[in-house]
Amino acid sequence: MGQDQSSVFDLAAVAAASNGGNNDPLLPPARFIGDPQKPSKMPYNKYAAYDKQVPFDYPQRTWPGKRIERAPRWCSVDLRDGNQALVNPMDSERKLRFWNLLVSMGFKEIEVGFPSASETDFDFIRMLIERELIPDDVTIVVLTQCREHLIRRTYEALRGAKRAVVHFYNSVSVLQREVVFRKNKAEIKQLAIDAAELCKHLEGEAKGIDLYYEYSPESFTGTEPEYAVEVCNAVIDVIKPTPDHKMIINLPATVEMTTPNVFADEVEYVSNNLNDRDSIVLSLHPHNDEGMGVAATELGVLAGADRVEGCLLGNGERTGNVDLVTLGLNLLTQGVDPQIDYSNVPEIRKTVEYCNQIKISERHPYAGNFVFTAFSGSHQDAIKKGLEARQMAADRAGADLDSFVWLVPYLPIDPKDIGRTYEAIIRVNSQSGKGGMAYLLKTNHNLDLPKRLQVEFDKIVQKYADDTKKEVKDEDIWRLFKDEYLPVEESGATAAGAVVGDTRDESLEQWGRLKLLKVSVSSGEDGSDTVLKAKLLDRGAGAANAAEPVVRELSGIGNGPIAAFINAISNLGIEVSVMDYVEHTMSVGTDAMAASYVEAQVGEDAESQIIWGVGIDSSIITSSLKAIISAVNRSER
Amino acid sequence: MGQDQSSVFDLAAVAAASNGGNNDPLLPPARFIGDPQKPSKMPYNKYAAYDKQVPFDYPQRTWPGKRIERAPRWCSVDLRDGNQALVNPMDSERKLRFWNLLVSMGFKEIEVGFPSASETDFDFIRMLIERELIPDDVTIVVLTQCREHLIRRTYEALRGAKRAVVHFYNSVSVLQREVVFRKNKAEIKQLAIDAAELCKHLEGEAKGIDLYYEYSPESFTGTEPEYAVEVCNAVIDVIKPTPDHKMIINLPATVEMTTPNVFADEVEYVSNNLNDRDSIVLSLHPHNDEGMGVAATELGVLAGADRVEGCLLGNGERTGNVDLVTLGLNLLTQGVDPQIDYSNVPEIRKTVEYCNQIKISERHPYAGNFVFTAFSGSHQDAIKKGLEARQMAADRAGADLDSFVWLVPYLPIDPKDIGRTYEAIIRVNSQSGKGGMAYLLKTNHNLDLPKRLQVEFDKIVQKYADDTKKEVKDEDIWRLFKDEYLPVEESGATAAGAVVGDTRDESLEQWGRLKLLKVSVSSGEDGSDTVLKAKLLDRGAGAANAAEPVVRELSGIGNGPIAAFINAISNLGIEVSVMDYVEHTMSVGTDAMAASYVEAQVGEDAESQIIWGVGIDSSIITSSLKAIISAVNRSER
Repeated sequence: MGQDQSSVFDLAAVAAASNGGNNDPLLPPARFIGDPQKPSKMPYNKYAAYDKQVPFDYPQRTWPGKRIERAPRWCSVDLRDGNQALVNPMDSERKLRFWNLLVSMGFKEIEVGFPSASETDFDFIRMLIERELIPDDVTIVVLTQCREHLIRRTYEALRGAKRAVVHFYNSVSVLQREVVFRKNKAEIKQLAIDAAELCKHLEGEAKGIDLYYEYSPESFTGTEPEYAVEVCNAVIDVIKPTPDHKMIINLPATVEMTTPNVFADEVEYVSNNLNDRDSIVLSLHPHNDEGMGVAATELGVLAGADRVEGCLLGNGERTGNVDLVTLGLNLLTQGVDPQIDYSNVPEIRKTVEYCNQIKISERHPYAGNFVFTAFSGSHQDAIKKGLEARQMAADRAGADLDSFVWLVPYLPIDPKDIGRTYEAIIRVNSQSGKGGMAYLLKTNHNLDLPKRLQVEFDKIVQKYADDTKKEVKDEDIWRLFKDEYLPVEESGATAAGAVVGDTRDESLEQWGRLKLLKVSVSSGEDGSDTVLKAKLLDRGAGAANAAEPVVRELSGIGNGPIAAFINAISNLGIEVSVMDYVEHTMSVGTDAMAASYVEAQVGEDAESQIIWGVGIDSSIITSSLKAIISAVNRSER
Repeated sequence: MGQDQSSVFDLAAVAAASNGGNNDPLLPPARFIGDPQKPSKMPYNKYAAYDKQVPFDYPQRTWPGKRIERAPRWCSVDLRDGNQALVNPMDSERKLRFWNLLVSMGFKEIEVGFPSASETDFDFIRMLIERELIPDDVTIVVLTQCREHLIRRTYEALRGAKRAVVHFYNSVSVLQREVVFRKNKAEIKQLAIDAAELCKHLEGEAKGIDLYYEYSPESFTGTEPEYAVEVCNAVIDVIKPTPDHKMIINLPATVEMTTPNVFADEVEYVSNNLNDRDSIVLSLHPHNDEGMGVAATELGVLAGADRVEGCLLGNGERTGNVDLVTLGLNLLTQGVDPQIDYSNVPEIRKTVEYCNQIKISERHPYAGNFVFTAFSGSHQDAIKKGLEARQMAADRAGADLDSFVWLVPYLPIDPKDIGRTYEAIIRVNSQSGKGGMAYLLKTNHNLDLPKRLQVEFDKIVQKYADDTKKEVKDEDIWRLFKDEYLPVEESGATAAGAVVGDTRDESLEQWGRLKLLKVSVSSGEDGSDTVLKAKLLDRGAGAANAAEPVVRELSGIGNGPIAAFINAISNLGIEVSVMDYVEHTMSVGTDAMAASYVEAQVGEDAESQIIWGVGIDSSIITSSLKAIISAVNRSER
């Protein structure tokens, strides 16, 4: 162990003693509401706080006031760090497919393997070079430990490459120095210096390669930042980078051990204390053990990092490397070009899942199946209103909607911008309320229900959801709606203009007393009353008479067709008064369908009910009469 | 819109103008190595940076210098926010099972539903109350919008409860004020005040309930912090909480819109500006849209929050609510008692996945299948050394290993502490190197291979991994090892003491020239040379003679049994000299097996090779002779 005499395990005493305070079971937790939380039996005294392991404070920090304004330089380590964490590492076919994806997305630095440790990696790198698969603007990175035979083998792997980064690392943490390498600080630093010198020496064998270096003080997060800087500066002094030919200093959060603010403090400290800072590309390599890898990266970039290593969708050892997709799209939502093409996230996901043979979570930011899905009714309602308001604002501004500012509640990104669709955004379950149902009817069926009709129909959907305890799919809603408002004869041919290409639905019961067979309307030229003649099929009041339909020819008069029709059916003893009436076209063009909504009081006085009816027809007259029939039929159901 | 005349969509111009600068395609990205990254075609001008949407700066911040020293108060919202985000929300059976899990883990506040919006929720709450399923020290929380009929219905749901929190919310963000509610600031604030007053008014109907309140300025992250404080203070002034009867002010990151440092700034600002702060429990309700929910929560707690709402394993709308398991176990790794029992994560995961019907990712912190798995050889080697060093340090300190400080490279937590095992920690693939193989042989087969033997055997494992391109499982390693060092006759009964309960493996080829049948050793009392007699089965040199074995009786003499045996087999023309010899017992007790490792030079001069042999036997003499035979046989293979 050389001159370092103390042991990290002395922390045992520190941990047990320092954790006393607030965790002492004798000192109750703060009282909030009801009884306090109880101490658990979790062995917290077994763990030492990060600041006991790596005491560090940096009150000079400036990063908390900064904002990210440009994309960092990205390096994908999918083919190396990601690959080594797979149950079945990629074969050449999968590796090549991943490589092609990365190149097509615009990655300019790709770590392709650890050629001295794996023949598969060595062969893959040879293939890339020999088959000339590396575009001129893409640089490969190869990893090696700071050991002579491994470094030599690494240079063998690179023969014939046009440009490459040799990435050498050794672990410098307090813990690894003591338990893995059993070397003191000076000895560990010397390993890095020796490796750097060997690399410089081997440059003679690398003629024709535009060669760069990357050094990683591995397990940086478990290392005193002052010592990490000391080792990095020793390496820098050997490599002698220049502003025109920089080297990369890469800080691995090999294990995420602390909140990201502490990591950012450390990054800012390193950034401020490296030799030849303008000749250095300061890079981060975060992992995600505490679930904060994305945050650590973003705060680290605020703190001065120029470059980020990670994997697509967060593959990598244990909890994964930081997810480059999330980082890039977070930038996009802030109006910053990620400089990587994330326009087809479903395709990226498909390739990544194929190559890694690991599925991502349904809730993975940007890429998961459910992340653009709003089940909550109030969320759905807000999304619907937000989309409408954005459309109106864009129209007002005369702007192209596709490029108009994206401000929609609950949707931080326009799904279209990353190759996803709105299709599944709104889903209805028993928790939804009316917003989602209304959205689906509007989006998929061109029906823009008046608010009070939404409330009425919502009860039907809610009852169905509570009864079935399942997600209510769009087809369920449409079936419920047709059954309730558009008895089958209405929903066949006449509703064919609806988006879903609906056809007559034999599964629905045909019900309803009245059916409109024919109608003619005439009104005098001088604005006199409208005269309406209608032929109706009447199955009689109540279900009992449904088997014996009668054709009735009726006529009526009024100040318009609706009034005239109401007058006509009063001959059947049906009393209707219209309380609200709304109509809209369902599409553009001469063959457009119209949807009519009528809120009507049907029946008289004590027995009357206020009820909605809906009609769809290419004629606005017919659709409005159908809406009245719909209300009448429903009142008799 | 009342007096607020400007529109959030004015940001369209701001976004397009302000994003120019660094993202202007005419201004190339910084040149690092090789060609620069190219601008992408992603529509970054469509998005407005957060600080354009919610301009806020808080240079007075003190949180970056703080550290978390005690657990916040936890509230699970699994049964409400989590539940409403499910394709199929939980039925009563699943809800009750989840409830029981939460109670058993020690949660003291549980949000149980939105009873005014869902009959299922209403019925579940009634069941909890009527069947008296709520322990005395557990408080239920019920959510409601700030609308009169919903608030009234909420109180109906609570009848007969002993204690409850009524949680009312309205959305106060810039965007929702404009596009969803079309109300100005004063009108939106009035909604919250009216709701608070109605709640106070309804207390008369809630006699016998120990009633508390929680107010959420929903979409807090899209709200000017100054305005959020204004609304919260108006509510506080109506509710009039006291230090003995606090109310909860809950800040929802309904959508995660920014880096967690900005969120923490906002939390600290709110914490410093609320009325009656000592009567307030300041709570956070983070979501995870940008993948930083855990970090936002931890920094928010540093910034002054007392309480956290979230879901187990991060279920919830879209990307989920913040994950309480990760938060709790992050505290544990810092030596802080989470005050929740996470000692059986596999069981928690099983119940959560059953109730939510959503699987978590293989890389989910603490709970995913792969998060304690190290495939990398250097990681495996470091873990092995770390476990050994910890054992030694604990022994030195005379401490119980189970409570001795946990410091192991690459493993931030002891898997045992959360109910997981080491079993799958070390897995070997073509990227692994020798560390994992050595660990598996030690852990599962009690064989502690000398370093140079590891190097030798590793080549065999590597070749197998490169050939098969698959994970090398423990049984593969053991089969390869037996085949190489312990030809079948050795690996049957004699190796039965190995952990796996190995039996004779008929699938292995029986090979090797020599087999030891019997041995006897005698040495004089005065320290004279050892005389050894051995009976060997000799299949002859080379595979050709394998079918005609001959029994040979040999004797030899030397300063010990190994020397005597070498002397004996020199009669067969076999020249061996031992270069290294290591032996260890494989278990404790009188029937313990011994493993012997011999590094031997076999053959003479130019044709000799240095090769390892391994022998296992209950007799240390026999095991050492078998090791020599193993080396001889291998040299002739």
